[in-house]
Amino acid sequence: MADAVGAPPARAAVVGCGVIGAAWAARMRLRGVEVSVFDPSPSAADILDAVTADALAAWNDLGLRTDRLGTLTTCESIAHAVERADVVQESVPERLDLKHATLAEIDRAAPTEALVASSTSGFKPSDLATVMGHPGRLVVAHPFNPVYLLPLVEVVGGQHTSLGTIDRAMATYRSLGMHPLHVRIEIDAFIADRLLEAVWREALWLVNDGIATTAEIDDAIRYGFGLRWAQMGMFETYRIAGGDGGMRHFMAQFGPALQWPWTKLMDTPDLTDELIDRIAEQSDEQAAGRSIRDLARERDRNLVAILKALESVDAGAGQTLAALRAAP
Amino acid sequence: MADAVGAPPARAAVVGCGVIGAAWAARMRLRGVEVSVFDPSPSAADILDAVTADALAAWNDLGLRTDRLGTLTTCESIAHAVERADVVQESVPERLDLKHATLAEIDRAAPTEALVASSTSGFKPSDLATVMGHPGRLVVAHPFNPVYLLPLVEVVGGQHTSLGTIDRAMATYRSLGMHPLHVRIEIDAFIADRLLEAVWREALWLVNDGIATTAEIDDAIRYGFGLRWAQMGMFETYRIAGGDGGMRHFMAQFGPALQWPWTKLMDTPDLTDELIDRIAEQSDEQAAGRSIRDLARERDRNLVAILKALESVDAGAGQTLAALRAAP
Repeated sequence: MADAVGAPPARAAVVGCGVIGAAWAARMRLRGVEVSVFDPSPSAADILDAVTADALAAWNDLGLRTDRLGTLTTCESIAHAVERADVVQESVPERLDLKHATLAEIDRAAPTEALVASSTSGFKPSDLATVMGHPGRLVVAHPFNPVYLLPLVEVVGGQHTSLGTIDRAMATYRSLGMHPLHVRIEIDAFIADRLLEAVWREALWLVNDGIATTAEIDDAIRYGFGLRWAQMGMFETYRIAGGDGGMRHFMAQFGPALQWPWTKLMDTPDLTDELIDRIAEQSDEQAAGRSIRDLARERDRNLVAILKALESVDAGAGQTLAALRAAP
Repeated sequence: MADAVGAPPARAAVVGCGVIGAAWAARMRLRGVEVSVFDPSPSAADILDAVTADALAAWNDLGLRTDRLGTLTTCESIAHAVERADVVQESVPERLDLKHATLAEIDRAAPTEALVASSTSGFKPSDLATVMGHPGRLVVAHPFNPVYLLPLVEVVGGQHTSLGTIDRAMATYRSLGMHPLHVRIEIDAFIADRLLEAVWREALWLVNDGIATTAEIDDAIRYGFGLRWAQMGMFETYRIAGGDGGMRHFMAQFGPALQWPWTKLMDTPDLTDELIDRIAEQSDEQAAGRSIRDLARERDRNLVAILKALESVDAGAGQTLAALRAAP
C-alpha cells in the first residue's frame, strides 16, 4: 500500500524552467497548486508549453482529474516568483555557482517558513546550503524525468536541515502523488544516480570498444531486466533467483562473479570526439527520424500504459497512482 | 515491429533443469516443442513442476494458447535426452569444469546437425567449445529469468561458430517468441550482465557503507528509472533529456559528470560475512514473510500486466508478445 496522499500546498514557485522545472510546474498545477515560475532563458516559455501539454495529455490518459489546474504565473524575477510561496523548487542547470546564486536569492526573498528544495542530481545539500541564511529549510528533492509521470523523488537533508523540514518535504511530495525516498546520508549523486552512473560508464565502454551499438544496449535493457525493474528492484529479483535459500544462497552462488574479469573494466573511458560522434550517430540511426517530441510522447504513452497495468495488479508505482486517484 | 515468429523446432533437449532449465523447457513446450530433460539433482522434478505451473499460469493470463503443450520426457542420461534433439539447451550450474563435461557429452550424443546452446551468463563460447568435436554448432544463448516471460536472449558465437549456426539460433529463439540479440563480439558476461554487474557493484557499496537498505535501493529502481527501462533503453531516454540537441547535447551537458567524485567508487567491496549477513537480513525484512514462490508469482503477475500494457501501445516487449500471438 502506498502512503495516503494529503492536500498539496497552496502556492509553489519553480525557479529554473527547463525540462525538469517545467515538469515540476505541470505536476504541481495538476494537483491544484498555484505555481509561479521564473526562468530568464528565451526558450523557457516554449519548453513550459510543450511539457505542460504532454503532462496534461498523460494525466488525461491515466484517467486522472485535469479539470482543476492551478494557475500559472510567469515572473520577471526570482524574488517575485518566491515571495508568497509555500514551497520553492529550484531547478536551474547543474553548476554550483549558479545553484549558489539562485539559492541565495531564493533564501532572501521567500517567506522564512517556506520549504526550499533543490532538484539537483548531484550536489550535496550541505554544499548547497552554505549561501543560505536559513539553511534548516533546505532539502534536495531530486526527481526523475518525466517528473509528471515517474513517482520517485529522492529527499536528502544536509547538516543544517531540520528533521521537521524532512517530514514536511516527504508530506509535500506525497501530496503531489509521488514516492519520496528519504536518503538518510548525504552522498554525491544520492542513490539512483549512482546506479545509473554505473550503467552509463559500462555502456560507454561497450560502445567505445565496439562491442555493441546504442540500439543494441537499449534492447538488452528493455527486453530483459528493464521489465523486471519496472515492478521489483534488483535485490528482490535476485532473492527469487536464490530460490528457497533466499539472498544468502544467491550471494554464495553469484558473489564470486564479482571477482570475474569484466569487473576490472571500471575506469571511465575518455570522452573523445570520436566516442561522442559515434554515440551521436548511433543514436540518430536508432531514432530513425523520430523527433525528440515524438520520442517523449512515445515514452509517455508507454509509461501511462505501464502505470495503469501496475495499478491493475496493485504493485509498485501503480499503488502510487491509485493513491493519487483517491487523493483530495 | 518485431520479427515474425516462425515454426519452432520439433524436438529439444534441456540439460540441467534448475530454475533456468525448467523455464526453458516450459517455454519450449508452450510453443509445442517435444522436450526431453536431464538433471541428476533430487530437487529437479519439484523445480520443474513448480516452474511449469507458473509458466502455464502466466501464458494463460497473457491470453496465449496453452492447449498444445509439447510432451515432456524425463531422461536418465544426457545421451538419452539429446539423441533425437534438434536443439540442445545446456543449463547446468556456472562452473567451467561442469560445463565442459556436459558439453562434451552432449557433443558426442546429439545428432551432428543439432544446434547446441549454452545458457551461461558468463563464459565465452570459444572457451566452452574447446571440448567439442563439432564446435561450429555451439552458441551461447543467454536468457533472463523468468525465461517463459522475458523475451531477451543474448546469442553469442565463438571463434569456431559458423555463421549458419548464428542464423539458425536467431530463428530458433524467435520461433519461441523471444527477442534474440546477436552479441557480435564475444566478451565475458556479454552485454546485459555487464550492465547488471555494474549496478550490483554499486548497490553493494551502498549497503556496505550504510547509505541505503536493500528495500530503499529497490524502491529507487522501481519507482524511477526501472519504469523508463521497461519500454525504452538508456540511450534513447537520455536522447530525450538532451532535448532538440539530441545525444550530442546530452553528452556535452552530462559527460563531465563522469568525472565527478562518486565515479571513484569503483572497486569491488569485500564480500565479508558481515556484508552478506546485512544483505540477507535486509532482504528478509523486505520480503515480509512472502515466500520465494509468492514473490515469483507476484513478479509474474506484474510482468504479465506490463507485457499486455506494452502490447496495447505496440511498444518494445509488447511487440514480441503480439508476434507470438500471431505465430503458427
